[in-house]
Amino acid sequence: MLRVGYSTNLSAELFAGFPKEVDLVPLPGNLDHEVEIDVWIPDPYPTRAMRIVPYLKGVRLVLSMMAGTEWIPGAMGPHVTICNARGAHNISTAEWTLSAILAMLKYFPVFLDIQHSGDWRQRSKIPAHYAEVTGDRRPLYPPVMLEELTGKTVLLVGYGSIGKDIERMLTPFHVDILRVARTARANPEVRAVSELDSLLPRAQVIVLILPATAESHRLIDKKQFELMAQGTLLVNAARGPIVDTDALVEALNSGRIRAALDVTDPEPLPVGHPLWSCPNLLITPHVGGSSPQFAVRSLKIAEEELRRYIAGEPLRNVVQTAI
Amino acid sequence: MLRVGYSTNLSAELFAGFPKEVDLVPLPGNLDHEVEIDVWIPDPYPTRAMRIVPYLKGVRLVLSMMAGTEWIPGAMGPHVTICNARGAHNISTAEWTLSAILAMLKYFPVFLDIQHSGDWRQRSKIPAHYAEVTGDRRPLYPPVMLEELTGKTVLLVGYGSIGKDIERMLTPFHVDILRVARTARANPEVRAVSELDSLLPRAQVIVLILPATAESHRLIDKKQFELMAQGTLLVNAARGPIVDTDALVEALNSGRIRAALDVTDPEPLPVGHPLWSCPNLLITPHVGGSSPQFAVRSLKIAEEELRRYIAGEPLRNVVQTAI
Repeated sequence: MLRVGYSTNLSAELFAGFPKEVDLVPLPGNLDHEVEIDVWIPDPYPTRAMRIVPYLKGVRLVLSMMAGTEWIPGAMGPHVTICNARGAHNISTAEWTLSAILAMLKYFPVFLDIQHSGDWRQRSKIPAHYAEVTGDRRPLYPPVMLEELTGKTVLLVGYGSIGKDIERMLTPFHVDILRVARTARANPEVRAVSELDSLLPRAQVIVLILPATAESHRLIDKKQFELMAQGTLLVNAARGPIVDTDALVEALNSGRIRAALDVTDPEPLPVGHPLWSCPNLLITPHVGGSSPQFAVRSLKIAEEELRRYIAGEPLRNVVQTAI
Repeated sequence: MLRVGYSTNLSAELFAGFPKEVDLVPLPGNLDHEVEIDVWIPDPYPTRAMRIVPYLKGVRLVLSMMAGTEWIPGAMGPHVTICNARGAHNISTAEWTLSAILAMLKYFPVFLDIQHSGDWRQRSKIPAHYAEVTGDRRPLYPPVMLEELTGKTVLLVGYGSIGKDIERMLTPFHVDILRVARTARANPEVRAVSELDSLLPRAQVIVLILPATAESHRLIDKKQFELMAQGTLLVNAARGPIVDTDALVEALNSGRIRAALDVTDPEPLPVGHPLWSCPNLLITPHVGGSSPQFAVRSLKIAEEELRRYIAGEPLRNVVQTAI
């Protein structure tokens, strides 16, 4: 019987729909003895999952609950097949991305500061750091001129299933979409990442939604920030190391660009890190993919992959094939 | 020749497309002598516009640059025809509404507080006031469960042109939409405002986007808050007096509901007003309708109305007909 290990942080009820032919093996976070399993569904939080790796024996297949699986090959080696939960985070991550773009274009961080001050009259000026990055030095009101998303040009860096959902949610705003991915393709037009630098100056909003790989490591560095138009909003919904943090801090502090980050490098961002005090920045602590539907959606994808595995059918979301 | 008065706060260039048959009369904000005009395009800020009313003679038609015109009948009396700029604020106000809904569902005010604290570890708890209103007492991370807009039920109170644009922007989120307006109609189904109370408990998000009239005054009062489901998000993109402020303060302070307000009653909200310190609340200082495109869009609508007036055709956006 196929033995499938899962974290006791997940309710057993979530596995009610799993095939009857499998033996579900609950794995506590403080596991301290070896366990034989064939298939592993790691705890969605990598630090908790990695802790028990030394005790797992016989694993041939890892079914991740996450879209990002960058820690698994290193932890498990090349002799396991790894599948991700492609699609499980789409809605939550795409919603976070829209929320972050709109909150920044509507100056919500500034208005929350006014709210904290309890003084409506603060709207009669604009904070210097906002005026610098937007180039608009008029008071917030009158005549406040909140930016509109409608009609802007948005560059999607990465065009997997989450990128497509972001595009879907951008549709009512009639934005011009530019797309970059590892390989160029058509319908819709997606350019190769080698063309990134030529596209950067054309966008007012740049969304990073691509996997963390050797190729995407520090894809956005000093040179790329210099290519961006004044006031560009950079949104990182992907992984921190895709951006060079020193270059980002400099671009923010010099009033060149704005940013909204759900991820950082390093992560968690340490107390006292210079990013915390950069202007024109919204940071959320890696929560974009989280959703009340997360566990149900992820495990549904794992369940379907497991059925294919049992039936000997090709797996759908393979990110590493066992050698 | 038809004399059309406009505020010198508006650049004369904005009127370049106006019909040649009119005599444009610039009106300074400190006007201190009587001026004969036939048509008045008031300054978009009511307090500035009202100041010069005593000096205006002969006005037969008022072309407002705003969607809301509630101050004009009182200031100008019943012998003028008043048109609003229906449509000019649609995009900006609808975008503000989407931004406010998403920012609240994604807990951005909480994350901005964490950002101000400079300590990522704050995500390991949830602020008590959020836990109370959402009923979710788990830490923000793990397992933070940001809410999704997708699949929620949204009640639109008001279904004019802005309400329709809000619905259009909600489309990708596959929400269930309930609609209420002054009069019931079909395709899509809009219920009469008399049915409001029966619909309130069914919505997770309630958007106010209706004009301020005698009928809508304090439409949302103590009883309506009591009918709302625990944790409901009330978004006021319309006018402050549509909500009873004391009842709103009580509903927020008791942890029953959340709110995002672009408008308040009184407005501006005075220093020390209890709303400033209510939990689970986002306040922006009446900026939702503002847009870099505002003056151009508004005056285009005024220009078209003026052409119809000159041609003796029916006006399109009449909110008061001269008696």
